[in-house]
Amino acid sequence: MKIAILGGGQLARMLVLEGHRLGISCHVFCHDLKEPAAQVTPHVTLISSKPPYFDANSLSQIKTCDDLTFESEFFDATSLSHELKGLEISIFPSLINLQRLQNRKSQKEILDQFKIPTSKWLPVNSIKEAESALIYFKKMVLKKSFGGYDGNGTFVIQNLRDLSSLSTSLFQKTSSLTSSSLQSNPPFIAEAFVPFKRELAITLARTKSGQMEVFPLVQTFQKNNRCNWVQGPVTHLKLNSLIKKIKQMLSSIEYVGTMSFELFDTGDDLIVNETAPRVHNSAHYSQNALTMSQFGLHLLCATSNSPLPKPSLVCSQFLMLNLIGKKITSNAKAPLPPEGFLHWYGKQNEKPGRKMGHLNFISQKRDPLLLKKGLKIRTKIGY
Amino acid sequence: MKIAILGGGQLARMLVLEGHRLGISCHVFCHDLKEPAAQVTPHVTLISSKPPYFDANSLSQIKTCDDLTFESEFFDATSLSHELKGLEISIFPSLINLQRLQNRKSQKEILDQFKIPTSKWLPVNSIKEAESALIYFKKMVLKKSFGGYDGNGTFVIQNLRDLSSLSTSLFQKTSSLTSSSLQSNPPFIAEAFVPFKRELAITLARTKSGQMEVFPLVQTFQKNNRCNWVQGPVTHLKLNSLIKKIKQMLSSIEYVGTMSFELFDTGDDLIVNETAPRVHNSAHYSQNALTMSQFGLHLLCATSNSPLPKPSLVCSQFLMLNLIGKKITSNAKAPLPPEGFLHWYGKQNEKPGRKMGHLNFISQKRDPLLLKKGLKIRTKIGY
Repeated sequence: MKIAILGGGQLARMLVLEGHRLGISCHVFCHDLKEPAAQVTPHVTLISSKPPYFDANSLSQIKTCDDLTFESEFFDATSLSHELKGLEISIFPSLINLQRLQNRKSQKEILDQFKIPTSKWLPVNSIKEAESALIYFKKMVLKKSFGGYDGNGTFVIQNLRDLSSLSTSLFQKTSSLTSSSLQSNPPFIAEAFVPFKRELAITLARTKSGQMEVFPLVQTFQKNNRCNWVQGPVTHLKLNSLIKKIKQMLSSIEYVGTMSFELFDTGDDLIVNETAPRVHNSAHYSQNALTMSQFGLHLLCATSNSPLPKPSLVCSQFLMLNLIGKKITSNAKAPLPPEGFLHWYGKQNEKPGRKMGHLNFISQKRDPLLLKKGLKIRTKIGY
Repeated sequence: MKIAILGGGQLARMLVLEGHRLGISCHVFCHDLKEPAAQVTPHVTLISSKPPYFDANSLSQIKTCDDLTFESEFFDATSLSHELKGLEISIFPSLINLQRLQNRKSQKEILDQFKIPTSKWLPVNSIKEAESALIYFKKMVLKKSFGGYDGNGTFVIQNLRDLSSLSTSLFQKTSSLTSSSLQSNPPFIAEAFVPFKRELAITLARTKSGQMEVFPLVQTFQKNNRCNWVQGPVTHLKLNSLIKKIKQMLSSIEYVGTMSFELFDTGDDLIVNETAPRVHNSAHYSQNALTMSQFGLHLLCATSNSPLPKPSLVCSQFLMLNLIGKKITSNAKAPLPPEGFLHWYGKQNEKPGRKMGHLNFISQKRDPLLLKKGLKIRTKIGY
C-alpha cells in the first residue's frame, strides 16, 4: 500500500512523517527537492508546479501508488482528471469534491445545500456587482473565488472608498470570460461581514467505508490574516447541531479524508467561515494532544478497512503556536525551545510571514496561564 | 549542523525521525537501502558491515557531517579511530567510551571504579576458568565479552552439566590469542547470579557541556531473553543513591549522549545488570510519555550549547509493548491497533523473535489495568 502525496510543503512533510511512524508508505510529488516533504523520504518525484503536472517519468512513478491525496486544495482538478485517466489509483478526496470545495462559490453552495450555517453571499463578477453587494450587505468581505489563503485574496470592505482603493485591475482579467463561465466561476464572492466574538475551528475525518471521527472544538487566533495560535478544547452550545449537519454533508458527498472548518463564534451561533478539504493548521495540536493526529488519520482514511482508531485527548488542555518568520535569511536554523514539542518544517529561507514550524504544548490540568507561558517561550526563541 | 548515524536499524530510524521533527539533519550510514532508517531519509550512504567500514565515497560523505553517533555499541572503535583520523568530526559517545562500554569486562571495571552496585564477576578464558568461577559463584551467568544482545551470548549456569552442555567450541577461538590479549579481552565473563524480584531500567543523558537529565525509573519484562514490555514510572528507595553514582561516572568519563542501565531490583537493592551507550529499547516509552524523547535528547546532547529541554512526564502512567515477530514472512505489513501509539520499523521480513515495532500507551490517571488492556490489544493485532 503506497500513498502518493501531491505537494511538498509542511503539510505533506507531516503526512509523510506520520506515515513513517505508522508504517504507511508515502511517495511525494513536488516541484523542488528542497521542499519540506522532500527532505524526509527517499521517495520523491518532481512534477510541474502548473498543469499539466505529470510527464512520462512522473506518470510511471505515480502508477506504483495505490492512493493519491493532496496537501493543498488548489490543484487543477480538470487537468488531473485528464492526466490520471485510466490509472488504477484511488484519489481522496475525490477530484469532484476537491473541485467543489476549492472554489468559494461552490463551497458556499454546498454549505447552503446541507443547511450548514454560513454567512450570506453573492457572486461578484465586476466592480459594479461589488458595489451592489456592498449596498446589500453594508459591510462585506470580498474573497477571490479561487486560490486565496492566509488572507491573500480576502478584503474587508466597509464603504465605497475601500472598494475603489482596491485596484480595478483585480477585475480586469475577467473581461475575456463569457457570461456562462463567469456564472459558474466568478472571480470573487462577497460575503456579509460577520461580527464574531472569537474564531473557532473543528476537524472531522471520514473513511472510505463511511466511519467518521470528530476532533475537539478549538479556538484559533489570527494575526495579520495568518493563524497565530490555536488552543482547546473549547465548547459551544451549537456544536452538536453543527457536527450533525457536517456529518450529513460528508456522508452525502462521500468525502474521504480529514476536513477542517473555520468557524465564527457569534455568541449564540456557530457559523462556518471557510472549509479546507485537507489537513489543516488548526489541527496541528493533534500531533501531541490526541492519540491519533490529523496526519495519521487522513492517511488511514484511505488505507484502512478495519475500524479507524478513535482519536481521544491525552491531556486536559492544549496549545499550538505557529512559528512565523520575522526576518529574511537564507539559512534558517531550528530553535531549541526549553519546553513544548517543536515541529520544524526544514525551510531553508525564512521570510516575514512564512510559517517555519510550530510548537505544541499539552497540560494534564486546566491551566489558565498556558497561553501566556507558551507565548513567552515563543518570544524567547525569537518568534 | 548535520549528524552522521552509523547503523540503519530501528534505533537509527527513530533518531532520524526525531531529527526531522526537531530540524536536526541526520545522514544514515548503513549497509542496505532496505534497512529501517534508510527508508525515512534521502540522506543515506552505504558502508561495509565490517571494518574497514568506509571507502572513498562514504568517507567523502561523512566529511560533510559535523557529528557522528551510533545506533549500536558494536562498531570496531579501533578501526573507526584509524578510518576517521584527521576528520573534523565530533564523535559521541567518544570512541574511548564506546570501547570501554561495549566490552563486558571493561564495562564491569568502570562500574566497579565508580562504586555503582553490580554483581561480582570474573574474566573467563577457558572451560577450566569457567569451572572455577562456578565453584566460586555456585550459580552464575556466563556472558560473551563482546557482541552479546537480547540474550544472545548469555548463559545461566547452575552446575557442571550446564557448563559441559555448552559446546566447548565456544572457547576454541581463543586458543590462538596470547595471554596478554586474553587478559584485556577475555572471551567471557562470569557473573554471580542475582536473584531479583523484578527488572528495572533507567536512562540518563549528558550533553557536551555537562548538563545531565534523568528519565523516570521503569519496570522491564523480558520474555525469551528479549524485552517484552516496559511500564512506569516506578520508584525504588535506592534510586537517588544510584543516580548520584551514575552521574559521577558520566561526568568523569565525559560521556555525551543518552545511556541506559538495565537493573535488578532485589527488594533492598538496585543493582546494575548491563548498560548500553546509546538509545535503548527500555526508553521507547519516552516518545509519547515525555516532553522530549530519548531520540531527540540524544541528538540534542551533541548539537546544543543552550540548556537542554527538560524531559518531563505528560502522563501519570505509561506502557511500551514490543511487537515481536511470530511468523516468517517476506511481506510484513503494519497492523492497525485500535488504541495506542504505533511505532513501526518498516522491516520487510518478519521472523520469529524479530522486533517489528512497538506500541506506546499513556494514561492520565494511574490505571492498574493498563498492562492487561495493552496486552489484549497487542494480541488482537497478532503480536
